[in-house]
This record gives sequence, structure tokens and C-alpha cells, in this order.
Amino acid sequence: MPGSGKTLFGNILKERGYQVVSMGDVLRKRYEKDAKIGERLMDYAKRIREIYGDGVVARLSLEEVDPKAKRVAFEGVRSLAEVEEFARLGNPIVVSVHSPPSLRYSRLMARQRSDDSTKIEELKRRDYQEIAIGIGGVIAMADYVILNTGTIEDFKRQAEDILNKL
Amino acid sequence: MPGSGKTLFGNILKERGYQVVSMGDVLRKRYEKDAKIGERLMDYAKRIREIYGDGVVARLSLEEVDPKAKRVAFEGVRSLAEVEEFARLGNPIVVSVHSPPSLRYSRLMARQRSDDSTKIEELKRRDYQEIAIGIGGVIAMADYVILNTGTIEDFKRQAEDILNKL
Repeated sequence: MPGSGKTLFGNILKERGYQVVSMGDVLRKRYEKDAKIGERLMDYAKRIREIYGDGVVARLSLEEVDPKAKRVAFEGVRSLAEVEEFARLGNPIVVSVHSPPSLRYSRLMARQRSDDSTKIEELKRRDYQEIAIGIGGVIAMADYVILNTGTIEDFKRQAEDILNKL
Repeated sequence: MPGSGKTLFGNILKERGYQVVSMGDVLRKRYEKDAKIGERLMDYAKRIREIYGDGVVARLSLEEVDPKAKRVAFEGVRSLAEVEEFARLGNPIVVSVHSPPSLRYSRLMARQRSDDSTKIEELKRRDYQEIAIGIGGVIAMADYVILNTGTIEDFKRQAEDILNKL
């Protein structure tokens, strides 16, 4: 979910030698090329899913995989259809990074990336859009969960625990 | 999700003086009275949601609340529509109990309640039915998460931590 801290986990994976493919970046790259005038990112994402299927961003993300990479992580999975896309090529492990909405909203309001809003109502609407795409199903079926409510050390300890089990 | 350990949390709440309303029991009670011949529980649940709205089980569960109860918990919330039903009367706190599918499936196969299956494929299909109803959205928006992958003491410690914050 936006502001949960998934990029932090991605950074830990990079340190461990993983190739980390940001599915958000993959989407944004196509959006910059292909979006209609005035079309918002979420609307573009919805449109290409309707045309190319719910797994389209996963398939586009697979194109970014370095053939020399030993271990690959995909950051920003949005639906079980995407997980199933990865499952066709192997046995994906799903890791969810959870933070409560109140904490995510504080972080997003402090961060202010171009697609981040500063109004609670808009942040909640964006959450509901992500949920409509199916992110909740991925979270519900996660193999591992990192609770990102404590310190950075606490986060790292949980990440290490997971990585040591893989 | 089925087999995650939510009843265990309900039992801890009862010890703390909460009235715990099992939404699954509320549904089953109506199912036993009103279901069509041969209709399965999940199909009945789907049908009454179509007729009476996605928040129907929450509304039926509110009827079970003891007016003398100081604190009430609803076990087995299935969708954000149900959370919104509770939010009309107060400020509900959502607690998710998470276990990975592999662990839930082992537990369910060991438990064998009447509506539990013994085949992985059926358990997975039941998970997807719960997700279709919208349980993933509730999990994604949880205010607190208990990770039920360790010992019972570990579970109780997490539950106490949450209860002490409320």
C-alpha cells in the first residue's frame, strides 16, 4: 500500500544482491510514453489492465529482468493476477509490508512525491483504488509480513529473518 | 482468513471483558433458518449480500450486541462495507490476524470443522471466495496486525501489546 515502506525492503534486497524491479516504475515508464492527454496514472493503469489483462504490469516487469540476475524481486505487486503471472515461471514468495493507514498517511503527507496527495480523503480514495485493483488479495495471501510500525532497526531485523528463511 | 487464528484473539478479548460477536456464527444461524435446499454457506452469504447489501452481516451482528457490554469486538469481518457499517456507530479498530497460506492450510486440514476442506485446491478456492467478498481490503487497511506464525505466548504478547494501546 502507498507509504507502507516497501521501497525500504527493496533497498535491503538490493544490498543482498537481488535485482529489484519496481513495478511502479515499469508502469510509469509506459505511462509517460502512452498515456492520453490529461490521463492520470491510476486511470492509465486501469485502462491497460482492461485491454491487456490484469497481469499486464507483471508481464512488462518480467521484460526488465536481467538474465544474469540470480535472484529477482518485484516491488509493488497489485493483484493476485500478477502473482499468478510470476507463478508461471517459478514459485514466487510474497512479502507484504504493513503499516496502519494513519501512519501511512502521515508519511505520505511528509513525502509529497508527485503522485502523493496531501489530503486524507484523497489518500483514502487512492487506497480504495489500489484495493479495487486487488492488492488486498495479495496482502491476504502473503507468505511473510513485515510490520513497519517501529524503528528502522526493527524493520531490518524482520527483513533479515525472512531472507534467512528463503 | 480461514485458519489464521482469529478465534484465538477473540478468546483473549473475552478474557478481557469484551463481548465478542462471531460474524461467522451470525451468518450460520441465518443460513440454518433461511438457506435453500442444497445451498452452500458461501453461496448463501453471497446471495444475502446481493439482496440486502454488502454490509448485511455487520448489521445482523449489531443486533447481537448486549446493551450492557462496555466493549464489543466483531470476529470475522469480511469486507470494508462491513467496517463502514460499524463506523456509522463509532470508530472501529481493525485488527488482522495473519498466517501464511501454507500454515493456514495445515491447520485447516488438522481441524476439519464441517465447513473446512481437506484438499489444498478447495482451501485455495475458499480463500479466493473470501477475497472476492473483499476481505483483502480489510486486511490492507488494518490498524493492527498479529502475526500468528510463532508460539501461543508470542501471539498473546502481540495481542496484549495491541490491547494496551487501545
